[in-house]
Amino acid sequence: MSRPHFARWLGQTNDVTQVFLAAGQIPDLINLAGGLPEPETWPVPELAELARSAVADHPGVTLAYPPIDGLPGLRDLIAARFSTPALQLSRENVLITTAGMQALDLLGKVLIDEGGLIAAQSPAYLGALDAWRPRQPRYRPLQMGANDFDAEAALSGAQFAYMVPNFSNPTGRLVGLAERHALIRAAETTGTWLVEDDPYGALYYDGAPLPRLISLWAEAHPGPYSGPIVYLGTVSKEIAPGLRIGWVIAAPEMIAALTTAKQASDMCTSGICQQIVQDAFASGLADRIRPVILDLYRARRDALCAAMDAHLGDLFDWEVPVGGMFVWAIAKNPALDTDRLLKVGLDHGVCISPSSVFDPLGQDRRAIRLNFTLNPPDKLAEGIRRLSAATRTLAA
Amino acid sequence: MSRPHFARWLGQTNDVTQVFLAAGQIPDLINLAGGLPEPETWPVPELAELARSAVADHPGVTLAYPPIDGLPGLRDLIAARFSTPALQLSRENVLITTAGMQALDLLGKVLIDEGGLIAAQSPAYLGALDAWRPRQPRYRPLQMGANDFDAEAALSGAQFAYMVPNFSNPTGRLVGLAERHALIRAAETTGTWLVEDDPYGALYYDGAPLPRLISLWAEAHPGPYSGPIVYLGTVSKEIAPGLRIGWVIAAPEMIAALTTAKQASDMCTSGICQQIVQDAFASGLADRIRPVILDLYRARRDALCAAMDAHLGDLFDWEVPVGGMFVWAIAKNPALDTDRLLKVGLDHGVCISPSSVFDPLGQDRRAIRLNFTLNPPDKLAEGIRRLSAATRTLAA
Repeated sequence: MSRPHFARWLGQTNDVTQVFLAAGQIPDLINLAGGLPEPETWPVPELAELARSAVADHPGVTLAYPPIDGLPGLRDLIAARFSTPALQLSRENVLITTAGMQALDLLGKVLIDEGGLIAAQSPAYLGALDAWRPRQPRYRPLQMGANDFDAEAALSGAQFAYMVPNFSNPTGRLVGLAERHALIRAAETTGTWLVEDDPYGALYYDGAPLPRLISLWAEAHPGPYSGPIVYLGTVSKEIAPGLRIGWVIAAPEMIAALTTAKQASDMCTSGICQQIVQDAFASGLADRIRPVILDLYRARRDALCAAMDAHLGDLFDWEVPVGGMFVWAIAKNPALDTDRLLKVGLDHGVCISPSSVFDPLGQDRRAIRLNFTLNPPDKLAEGIRRLSAATRTLAA
Repeated sequence: MSRPHFARWLGQTNDVTQVFLAAGQIPDLINLAGGLPEPETWPVPELAELARSAVADHPGVTLAYPPIDGLPGLRDLIAARFSTPALQLSRENVLITTAGMQALDLLGKVLIDEGGLIAAQSPAYLGALDAWRPRQPRYRPLQMGANDFDAEAALSGAQFAYMVPNFSNPTGRLVGLAERHALIRAAETTGTWLVEDDPYGALYYDGAPLPRLISLWAEAHPGPYSGPIVYLGTVSKEIAPGLRIGWVIAAPEMIAALTTAKQASDMCTSGICQQIVQDAFASGLADRIRPVILDLYRARRDALCAAMDAHLGDLFDWEVPVGGMFVWAIAKNPALDTDRLLKVGLDHGVCISPSSVFDPLGQDRRAIRLNFTLNPPDKLAEGIRRLSAATRTLAA
């Protein structure tokens, strides 16, 4: 007998992931495609000691089933860390998740019935599109930054709007202050939930951080928080991704719904990892390593952009990002197909991310995303030389 | 403006969980309702040292993003541990999950479109019903053990069948060898996926373990495994639940589909926890603590059943379970409403699980589930005395 078929959404993934996986086997490949941090930034001895003490000193917390919504001490600490004079957060505003990815999965579960409408910054984070595919949503692409962008029209009627205001993945774009205010007003007038995904919020290389959307909302609505902004954070870029710890900050009714969904997804997040993160924040470890991370990544961004100036200036347009992990480059030649550039690039020993994977509609084939955090300056420069050669081969 | 509504399935959870949560606040309550292990069985110093060395000795593995499908070494170890002369497992047959609960969530994602049919052992594990609710399935209850149980009719046309052959949660029932063979034959003739959830497989207190369904399948189909049995395991009962590590053993095509779903759910499971479990298995730690756990739980099962004989013999019928964590007791009086007994029991200082929460159709109100692993013998006996008094109050 034949086996029952798999669910419909599984037939709708693209094959670029397979290309990426196969690329991992190519010797001497320079990987500009991923979004990985530099391992040398991880405070290994300190985390090893925190891992030991998490189990030795707190076995009743870390070896048992932790509460579904997270360790109370960690929730309190996150609430305190993100509170401002206007934004009053308490434990009831915080859910601990198995990193940022799970927060996206849970949001899909609690907000999307099949065919539900998501208004998503376009191009959008590939992982978010992956997370929501099993719920079979419809998408309205948000052309943020466009002159005629109408935030209220963009949000109206959607179950939620999704954006990465600080250094969007993939474009690296920073949403400006005026646009942030417009989004807040639109969330108020439309009632739509507004998901502020902020994995890169600690990675500002130039200038002071802009206020978070959730903080701006609170300035107009001070007091215990119950607004429509749903803020997502993670330690993946600030400490280490292997800890798999993230958090949602939201209105208590949203936290309660997400907690029900989390119970149904993995019951609870590892208590060992939660305790390590709680102690890393409480002891100031995350604060101590941040300047080192920022200096390293700023230098790598500058090295990548200098190499691009030298080798890609006639082929692509880009802006130097103020923070984050990526440069987004748009081909000057509208006929360039970056899905093909991915494959030709692999032949030249460099791997890039093509724009099609970040398009909720799967159509954009004119841009590429380049990561600058994983490789040292000399490898970034060599990667760009290879990319230049590959692009010229394709154009020839 | 009003906020968008939550997804439909969120309106379909019952309120018993709220009663349980409120019960946690009652002083001196004896909790026979949960499914928690005894914390004194956890090897705290050994796990603390493994946690330290996981980070200190393997930072490139444990602090990075682990592979979506799990650490290769841990997958190999699970494959070797469950292989038999006929059942040839390799890494491609194994997916590491964020404990058993995530495996259930992933199965729902890859096999259920809205309205899809699940054939589920009835009564069924509450967590499985929770995990699949967001996919909005239909259920066919399997009355396993009934004289007229027809395995082929039970499985036919379902996306998958779900069962806990070793000491079902909630009933503690062991599926016998003849019935296991019938299920295997039915899986072959119908083609239906058969999910063998086995969290209690290491908890046999009397006699030799029966062969797993996946092993029986392989006896008839020896060689590299590609059969319809999907086996789920976890360290929650063997080592400690806070590690949040489980695994799926299945045909490579199923592992591939589940891996796509896992990428979309939490990207990967904590490398620290995976490395701890890999080292705990490799060093024999799990094997060393098993006899201690078995002796402790066997004595507690006997203490609970002795107290039941003394105080509940005229009120309930039950069988002494051969293993697992639970005794299932069915009221002699068909008019007894165990949802009400939960509430009256709380007034008497004892908490039990009513059968309604384990019924896929939510209707069975005649039985209760009693846990014997968490409390020492004297507390178990006192809990049963309180339950006897509560039941008599309700009957009066």
